[in-house]
Amino acid sequence: MSLIVQKYGGTSVGTLERIKAVAERVARAQEGGHRLVVVVSAMAGETNRLIDLAKALSPTPETRELDALVSTGEQVSAALVAMALNDLGRPARSFVAHQIRIDTDSVFGRARIQRIDAENLRTALDNGQIAVVAGFQGVDKEHNITTLGRGGSDTTAVAVAAALKADVCEIYTDVDGVYTSDPRICPAAQRLDRISFDEMLELASLGAKVLQIRSVEFAKRYNVPVHVRSSFEEQEGTWVVQEDEGMEEVLVSGVTLDRDQAKITLRAVPDRPGLAARILGPVAAANIVVDMIIQNASEARQTDMTFTVAQGDYKQALRLVEGVAKEIGAQGVSSDTNVVKVSVVGLGMRSHAGVAAKMFDVLAREGINIEMISTSEIKISVVIEAKYGELAFVESMPSQEGRE
Amino acid sequence: MSLIVQKYGGTSVGTLERIKAVAERVARAQEGGHRLVVVVSAMAGETNRLIDLAKALSPTPETRELDALVSTGEQVSAALVAMALNDLGRPARSFVAHQIRIDTDSVFGRARIQRIDAENLRTALDNGQIAVVAGFQGVDKEHNITTLGRGGSDTTAVAVAAALKADVCEIYTDVDGVYTSDPRICPAAQRLDRISFDEMLELASLGAKVLQIRSVEFAKRYNVPVHVRSSFEEQEGTWVVQEDEGMEEVLVSGVTLDRDQAKITLRAVPDRPGLAARILGPVAAANIVVDMIIQNASEARQTDMTFTVAQGDYKQALRLVEGVAKEIGAQGVSSDTNVVKVSVVGLGMRSHAGVAAKMFDVLAREGINIEMISTSEIKISVVIEAKYGELAFVESMPSQEGRE
Repeated sequence: MSLIVQKYGGTSVGTLERIKAVAERVARAQEGGHRLVVVVSAMAGETNRLIDLAKALSPTPETRELDALVSTGEQVSAALVAMALNDLGRPARSFVAHQIRIDTDSVFGRARIQRIDAENLRTALDNGQIAVVAGFQGVDKEHNITTLGRGGSDTTAVAVAAALKADVCEIYTDVDGVYTSDPRICPAAQRLDRISFDEMLELASLGAKVLQIRSVEFAKRYNVPVHVRSSFEEQEGTWVVQEDEGMEEVLVSGVTLDRDQAKITLRAVPDRPGLAARILGPVAAANIVVDMIIQNASEARQTDMTFTVAQGDYKQALRLVEGVAKEIGAQGVSSDTNVVKVSVVGLGMRSHAGVAAKMFDVLAREGINIEMISTSEIKISVVIEAKYGELAFVESMPSQEGRE
Repeated sequence: MSLIVQKYGGTSVGTLERIKAVAERVARAQEGGHRLVVVVSAMAGETNRLIDLAKALSPTPETRELDALVSTGEQVSAALVAMALNDLGRPARSFVAHQIRIDTDSVFGRARIQRIDAENLRTALDNGQIAVVAGFQGVDKEHNITTLGRGGSDTTAVAVAAALKADVCEIYTDVDGVYTSDPRICPAAQRLDRISFDEMLELASLGAKVLQIRSVEFAKRYNVPVHVRSSFEEQEGTWVVQEDEGMEEVLVSGVTLDRDQAKITLRAVPDRPGLAARILGPVAAANIVVDMIIQNASEARQTDMTFTVAQGDYKQALRLVEGVAKEIGAQGVSSDTNVVKVSVVGLGMRSHAGVAAKMFDVLAREGINIEMISTSEIKISVVIEAKYGELAFVESMPSQEGRE
């Protein structure tokens, strides 16, 4: 008898009919002799509806209250799914964060799970019940309700699976697996049968929306096999697992396009030790995630430093950096929100330097100016003007022939 | 500096504009030098929307899950009101039941408050914050979310006021006070400036919707002055307070019409001691509130017993009674949901026996058959066919001339 954690996203529970379908799918899995924990997101559209209410009341809603507000979306889904299961004669109980409980830090809007006490979930399972968990949320030490950021229900599911030592964490979504790139943009995209935690981490960090990056970190740390699959079909999707020997022979190479980027540059900063910390310290203290960071060495003992953040953090980050700029004697601050990031990633790239060359070649041929470049052993990212995003994305896809 | 608990009902927080107006009203009260706790209901229509979702999934939704579901309505309101206050520069924090906490028993859908630990609320007040409390909900010993029944936010407000030893509990609603009868049905209805806890209890138990009956019980037990007033006007409403000498001289006489009634009769039951307990025991065990109970003595050592319950409990109560009927040798069970209860209540009635006579006279003249009568020192209730409800109600109103 396996213990399975199943996570259903907002589209999968988007209507009452789909909630019934989810309940039936869960019931079938129980019928197969498994013990089940179900983690649910808010019904599609609900989180945005709640955020719109908040924004209509206040241009900058208090973050503690925003979390208390939006967390109700998952509570509603969890209760409805539990009801639907009970109606099928499958005893089920819904759980919100404080009932489990799921402890997080106090960074509202993007809290991190620190500890899960799964005792109450275990009791429910031991009583033959299906545990239905509201995803996306936690509670901090002072019992404040926190949320884990967009896609946080993935992290809830994997963290719960880790706490319960589940056999597998199934992520049900509206696509049938992890693709080498977004199949809605690039028809040549291929579904992967298996991908390693590390590669999935790179894909997720580059903007692939299929799994929240923290969920993959959890999965890797606690070695939780994750199975990404469609909630509308029965076929298997993509397994995200530990890298094994068989896998190394496979060339996995994906391309991602991330539109949620904004670029900030400090121009002509006197080059001194500790500069990066001085500039980025206040940004980090405000819990803004900095993505790419580039600093150019220069002969004149001056340097330009450029970094990117998510669009939602752009204004705050710019304000913070403008404050620092004067103190450190920078010539000025420039910024650009009209940019996107295109990335090529793949284990196989370690031995395929040609991929980078080909990418730069493609961009040059199309007359696309590269504003930033960042590379690692298994990825290349470029920031370019937004309007070229899709073109660069499609052209950068390694063709089948190019694969060896 | 007074400590004021203000409760705003669903209509008062029914739109974002009204939520802003509530925040401004609260801010003005704080400006006046008071410390404030605000208790809110769900936005008008929200509770029904959630119940409709549940009913669409299951004809008899699991009550534990129904409470987890509908309690989100008040959580949303509390977060929004706290945001609106913060936006006005008034530091505020929302609280749901487990954060306060509000302990109840485990009777889902109509839980009773057992204990309030107001420490966290006190801390917020001491920090200069306005505490915004989600009404209508509690948590039981196992951390399950419970709800207090329709109108439960009134009880939350009064119970919180009692726990904090507040100076007053203000109930803001869409009418401007307590009337001798429903002003929407009876234009002659008069607003009361003051009413005693006992009279308010009678009015509430007879179906007046202005305050949940348990809130009045709390107010009486802990002597919390309650001020019922309009959230759309500034003028004073009705004070519900301990009976005092000045009050006894006032003739308070109201009429209420309660449509939420269903009648169940056991016919020809062998009359033995313990009969009522035998019949009503299972009903009470199912947490069904029985309203009127009438048993007629008879010479043939047989008796008829009739009682009324709320329409929502009717089917379950009937099923339970039909089970008992066979065991105790009753001839049969009959029932009727097409009934209403009209009641006349007033302290002054003790010395005005004429009120009862006039009521029966009015009903006779209109050809209305009285199906049940129940009287106490300060009230007379009759159950009649539903279609005569409004007629009997209006006709039973004591005219101004009849008052002495």
